[in-house]
Amino acid sequence: MGMLLCCLFPLDSIEWENLVMASATVNGGGCRLRVIRSVSAALGRRFYAKVATGTDIVSAAPNVSLQKARTWDEGVASKFSTTPLKHIFKDKKVVIFGLPGAYTGVCSNKHVPSYKENIDKFKAKGIDSVICVAVNDPYTMNAWAEKLQAKEAIDFYGDFDGSFHKSLDLVTDLSGALLGTRSERWSAYVVDGKIKALNVEEAPSDVKVSGADTILGQI
Amino acid sequence: MGMLLCCLFPLDSIEWENLVMASATVNGGGCRLRVIRSVSAALGRRFYAKVATGTDIVSAAPNVSLQKARTWDEGVASKFSTTPLKHIFKDKKVVIFGLPGAYTGVCSNKHVPSYKENIDKFKAKGIDSVICVAVNDPYTMNAWAEKLQAKEAIDFYGDFDGSFHKSLDLVTDLSGALLGTRSERWSAYVVDGKIKALNVEEAPSDVKVSGADTILGQI
Repeated sequence: MGMLLCCLFPLDSIEWENLVMASATVNGGGCRLRVIRSVSAALGRRFYAKVATGTDIVSAAPNVSLQKARTWDEGVASKFSTTPLKHIFKDKKVVIFGLPGAYTGVCSNKHVPSYKENIDKFKAKGIDSVICVAVNDPYTMNAWAEKLQAKEAIDFYGDFDGSFHKSLDLVTDLSGALLGTRSERWSAYVVDGKIKALNVEEAPSDVKVSGADTILGQI
Repeated sequence: MGMLLCCLFPLDSIEWENLVMASATVNGGGCRLRVIRSVSAALGRRFYAKVATGTDIVSAAPNVSLQKARTWDEGVASKFSTTPLKHIFKDKKVVIFGLPGAYTGVCSNKHVPSYKENIDKFKAKGIDSVICVAVNDPYTMNAWAEKLQAKEAIDFYGDFDGSFHKSLDLVTDLSGALLGTRSERWSAYVVDGKIKALNVEEAPSDVKVSGADTILGQI
């Protein structure tokens, strides 16, 4: 079990934070915000400029659309259509979780499975859809969802240009892990567009507050 | 066969070009270069600022590294190491081809298979390695390579931040196809870093000049 956990959590929070800080320093952009966040975290308070409990997620990301996971051929058939946020959230109870990327360790081994395994509990609580989103194109998201055998339970969406996560101020530079600009690891319970609960991990390698168990207790 | 070809080539060159032009117009950046290229193409001449036959590919992309395709766990074990270009090209005969992305149609169905199926011919001509590269992270590239059963024949590398393709001026905006900034579709025969032959498609949906058959005739 120790070996297994070691594989699932290959980097601890401090190592991830160092990676992120190094990337931010090298690349210049985003460093100031990261420092503010780190100071806030040290003070025991989280700092997010654009998203919090009570935020209207549709208004916070105006004119932003996500891209439903699909094969390339389905993408062509759909004329590369996208899904406006209001179509996803309006008049619905939604649980949404974001993660650093398809085919990365913690996302594949722990984060997605925690939602897949609990899908019946979400449905029993009246949740209309459980959504997984990442800064990946929708074809990669689709292939990954199929590999995880999770497409039946969870709706997968790509945020290929990061515009959704940038609007919510939930991006982080993971160039140190060869990923580039990606999403924080987070989850939210959203009713008719309004965020009722929001959980953002201190480090992208953590699944301490963004897994299914936590948000099931918040619904 | 007609149906099959329709699936393999769902967009013709003009449709792709329109997508790219629309993206460039919407996003602002890159439009001028695209117009220059379009004019050059109309005149029957290709325009590439930084890469041509005779170019030293290592010097053209100084301090750029690629990321060998691997699983996330292998990435962690490697401490997220990258491969400097000189390690890839120095004292070697290399065939390298770039494409718009893992899990897209023409790349999966035609471009990679053309190299995989001809690997013995490349080896017979003394080629040390056949390399596939795309603006994807190395974990996605690895999963895609495994799905295509092509890892034995071809060395797959990610260019996660696009720095390799940007340095060579071989990027294009494919946001219209929900992909973002990606690589042109191209191939090159490179001896000890020097480009001996270079083929770049007019449209990313084409595999007219960048497939294995063409470059086999150039070695």
